[in-house]
Amino acid sequence: MLPTILDLTSLRAAYEAGKSPLDIIEIVIARRNDATDPAIFITPAPDEALRAEARALMERSPEPNSLPLWGIPFAVKDNIDVAGLPTTAACPAFFYQPEKDATVVARLRAAGAIVIGKTNLDQFATGLNGTRSPYGAPRSVFDKDYVSGGSSSGSAVAVASGLASFALGTDTAGSGRVPAAFNNLVGIKPTPGLVPNGGVVPACRSVDVVTVFAATVGDGVAIRKVMEGYDAADPFSRKAVPASLPASGLRIGVLDGAEREFFGNRQVEALYDAAIERARALGATIVACDYAPFRQAAELLYNGPWVAERLAAVKDFLATNAVDFDPTVRTIIECAKAYDAVAAFEGRYTLEALRQKTGKEWEKADILMLPTSPTTYTVEEMMADPIVKNGHFGRYTNFVNLLDCAAIAVPAGFDADDHLPAGVTLIGPAFTDDALAAFADAMHRAANAGMGKDRLSAIPEASRVPPADDGLVPIVVVGAHLTGMPLNHELTRPGGRRIRSCRTAPDYRLFVLPGTVPPKPGLIREPGFDGTGLEVEVWKVTPEAFGRFVQNIPAPLGIGKVTLDDGSQISGFLCEAHAIEGAREITELGGWRAYVSDQMKKA
Amino acid sequence: MLPTILDLTSLRAAYEAGKSPLDIIEIVIARRNDATDPAIFITPAPDEALRAEARALMERSPEPNSLPLWGIPFAVKDNIDVAGLPTTAACPAFFYQPEKDATVVARLRAAGAIVIGKTNLDQFATGLNGTRSPYGAPRSVFDKDYVSGGSSSGSAVAVASGLASFALGTDTAGSGRVPAAFNNLVGIKPTPGLVPNGGVVPACRSVDVVTVFAATVGDGVAIRKVMEGYDAADPFSRKAVPASLPASGLRIGVLDGAEREFFGNRQVEALYDAAIERARALGATIVACDYAPFRQAAELLYNGPWVAERLAAVKDFLATNAVDFDPTVRTIIECAKAYDAVAAFEGRYTLEALRQKTGKEWEKADILMLPTSPTTYTVEEMMADPIVKNGHFGRYTNFVNLLDCAAIAVPAGFDADDHLPAGVTLIGPAFTDDALAAFADAMHRAANAGMGKDRLSAIPEASRVPPADDGLVPIVVVGAHLTGMPLNHELTRPGGRRIRSCRTAPDYRLFVLPGTVPPKPGLIREPGFDGTGLEVEVWKVTPEAFGRFVQNIPAPLGIGKVTLDDGSQISGFLCEAHAIEGAREITELGGWRAYVSDQMKKA
Repeated sequence: MLPTILDLTSLRAAYEAGKSPLDIIEIVIARRNDATDPAIFITPAPDEALRAEARALMERSPEPNSLPLWGIPFAVKDNIDVAGLPTTAACPAFFYQPEKDATVVARLRAAGAIVIGKTNLDQFATGLNGTRSPYGAPRSVFDKDYVSGGSSSGSAVAVASGLASFALGTDTAGSGRVPAAFNNLVGIKPTPGLVPNGGVVPACRSVDVVTVFAATVGDGVAIRKVMEGYDAADPFSRKAVPASLPASGLRIGVLDGAEREFFGNRQVEALYDAAIERARALGATIVACDYAPFRQAAELLYNGPWVAERLAAVKDFLATNAVDFDPTVRTIIECAKAYDAVAAFEGRYTLEALRQKTGKEWEKADILMLPTSPTTYTVEEMMADPIVKNGHFGRYTNFVNLLDCAAIAVPAGFDADDHLPAGVTLIGPAFTDDALAAFADAMHRAANAGMGKDRLSAIPEASRVPPADDGLVPIVVVGAHLTGMPLNHELTRPGGRRIRSCRTAPDYRLFVLPGTVPPKPGLIREPGFDGTGLEVEVWKVTPEAFGRFVQNIPAPLGIGKVTLDDGSQISGFLCEAHAIEGAREITELGGWRAYVSDQMKKA
Repeated sequence: MLPTILDLTSLRAAYEAGKSPLDIIEIVIARRNDATDPAIFITPAPDEALRAEARALMERSPEPNSLPLWGIPFAVKDNIDVAGLPTTAACPAFFYQPEKDATVVARLRAAGAIVIGKTNLDQFATGLNGTRSPYGAPRSVFDKDYVSGGSSSGSAVAVASGLASFALGTDTAGSGRVPAAFNNLVGIKPTPGLVPNGGVVPACRSVDVVTVFAATVGDGVAIRKVMEGYDAADPFSRKAVPASLPASGLRIGVLDGAEREFFGNRQVEALYDAAIERARALGATIVACDYAPFRQAAELLYNGPWVAERLAAVKDFLATNAVDFDPTVRTIIECAKAYDAVAAFEGRYTLEALRQKTGKEWEKADILMLPTSPTTYTVEEMMADPIVKNGHFGRYTNFVNLLDCAAIAVPAGFDADDHLPAGVTLIGPAFTDDALAAFADAMHRAANAGMGKDRLSAIPEASRVPPADDGLVPIVVVGAHLTGMPLNHELTRPGGRRIRSCRTAPDYRLFVLPGTVPPKPGLIREPGFDGTGLEVEVWKVTPEAFGRFVQNIPAPLGIGKVTLDDGSQISGFLCEAHAIEGAREITELGGWRAYVSDQMKKA
């Protein structure tokens, strides 16, 4: 029996246990038929086509789980091309039959994943609420009176209700995050340019990002890794250089008093505060940041010239088919006609000035944690005031792509009535996509909110994201580089951090090197020698700083591997043997610090 | 007696020899009075103000050459604010009295430089020819019938005729490079964002760059270093991370046949070809690149929405003062009214697509070398067809800021009649500003073209730019990392390069380490041992690659300093003494390669 939520761990276990992709596809077809929300799909993949695809996979790669996403069913937002299924962008008259898969879909299919259908969206991905579609409004899986969030509405509901393991969204303002919050899912929003956009109907081409809705952070990251990678055919594709974050002592920026706005929703505010407390309990340092420059950047996306990108994307179609637009979407897009090229450049100037202002906040915090959406509304409330209420959803999301950030939206639990969920989003500088994931996963687990509509499910251990490799090199120091010693600055100046103090393995001897300035010891390993180990410190520095550090070490010292008392081997100081001839041995003092202390007493 | 050209070396020597800033200022005043070109300055600094500034400097910092630019006279293009002198941007009605210096001017003055006046320009920096100013057209210092180049016309002529040691220009399309070529000067065009723009009248704010006209590359770089550095108040200021270029074997991309266009000027074409030969003689590898995507990007600057930035800069003034514009400048700026915001974003999409295409050319070449301007014209010719002929000057310059490059324009000698000069520009990726300089300096010296109007002057040795630190770490390898050996890929994969083969100092012994896979030697220094030295190779890798390399070395090996036969000490392999107990010594074979060869014969 499959669980409600089709996370990767559960599906892989099912395959391991003998289920076939065809079995899973039959379950997906059955669940799709039983789905209570009629507005999830615009074009479901036909049953027979799905079965054929499962059979083709079993032929191509018969071994269970022999591809990264072997037999994993996924849904695709209907502004992303899938060969064999029409693309509509939720505008029936815009309908076309794509000749080939979007780049990301091709990569996912090559990895064994199976498309179960094209999902509903706010037309032309213009909206954050999910009601702007002639194909109906998908609903929150927790209350059908409430919006699903958008624009990737159908994608989120498909995953949260157990019809697919994951789904693709697109995210310009927050369309890959807001529906995650409203449906108790993880939303992986990559850094702009990390994942190629070929075959995606543009919203704002300069800031559009393909996203993943998944049950867990681990699932979402695994899927993103299949999709990502430079594509010279995509003008906005970039060659990513992964950025790291501190592995411990993460400084998390949160809303300060002046910029706290939940539009009267105390439930979401309380959930945000609880998330902050969980972050603190997980070891983060909480820092109040000034959200004002981020908010001002966020406001540019709809109340600024970027809306002209939406017009650029559909202007020929709008010229002939204006009546075929959703009235709200058309109103928004036609606003763009008021902007001339001067206004477009002036918008950029404003954004660049705000980018410099946000730079000061990024000096205080390594990442930000913000409410994904500060509130939610019923479909009826949204329909009554569609532009203003939609704007509320984007308050904490709209700046993220404009300011070139990575983001992961995670569930933050349910309100006091156990009725509706809320989420928080962790936001980091460009290309911290991997570095963000471990903390996002820890936050998701700590929220204890289940996955999708199954709020009691446990997040599988197998999907746990290991602590991000902080990219740093550990180094054992034994003498003049110890804390407080004369060369310690060679570690602290390039940003090195002390990890711990400990001792070497017992078979090391320590000597005072004659004639060194400042005085330095020489550490020599002698297998069979049985001492008590010597006092050392372990520091961490970047590979580049480590390289420069090693380069600057004068003979007769060097860097090799030092074995510690726990048996681990870590880069650390060695000494050429010839240099200790006639040198005074101080092994019995237990370390350099004791020797220096002795010397000072004598002086 | 001061030489004609006031390069920094000459001035510093004069100060060293006892001249005072007041003496120099008197000479500058006299030369300014004698200048034959009446169109160089819009506002010369008044004589008395200049004398007062010289006296103030002597008071503030009495010691000769005690500041980086102590008593160095410079001219400032009249679209850059200097407190105490009006700014006009070559439009009399635009006149205003700035309250403070532009950021760059303030930094230069703090370093001891003295402003001698505000120079003429193509109005609002819109042009590359120097004729678009109501203050007259400055002329080439080599023939008053010919244009000076623009828009920084007066700045170039001031330096080339010996009125100032250097001058500030601004460069959007090529205004800091074309006048350098026409007046036998060096033009330093920093990477956009390296030098702050605060207090500069914008042309196209997103791509405007403050530049330096100087007599030598060394002078220009020294001045740029005073001006550069992040400024949070400037929306386009950036925190630079210097980029390196190969210290040897530089691959220089040049025009291929299809894209060679000199508008019939065979003289400039011949000078370009001669420059290519000089580059080859200096050790560069010449590579034919496809200029087409660069040209297409260049064409966007005037025939695309970026012209709206020019309108954005002056739109309020244009609304009230249209009649005060130069007619050609007004025509160009008013063209911007035809572009809407959609066109602005579409221009960006085109640029980003071209950026991806140029990426393929950057894989072939480390830098580009292009004609600075493919031809020149008389003032009369230019006036008769001002937009088309101006466009010719920008053929090889207009893409550089749009594509985020650094550039240095250097003299390339005089035509066959020894009449007019031409130049070439070396162009590198963002933040190669320093890395470009040594080769640019070598090219300037090899051109043997003098400095400015003094075409027989020798470029001072003291201004020679030392080979750029390539930022790489040398490493000595002795065993499995030698060329052709099993671990050599640990050097080649991260981009390491072999520098040379040589021998260690004589006091090293080599042992076969027992039980290592692949087999490895241990190198041990024994002072007093008198061998023949051991065969080693020196490689270079980035500090980061070096750091990772060291991190991956297993015990008992490590990296210390190895002394070579020339006495130099370079990072290289050491071995813990305990590991060679009982190991076979192979010192007498002269190196690891001989041992491996012996073993293979036996096998």
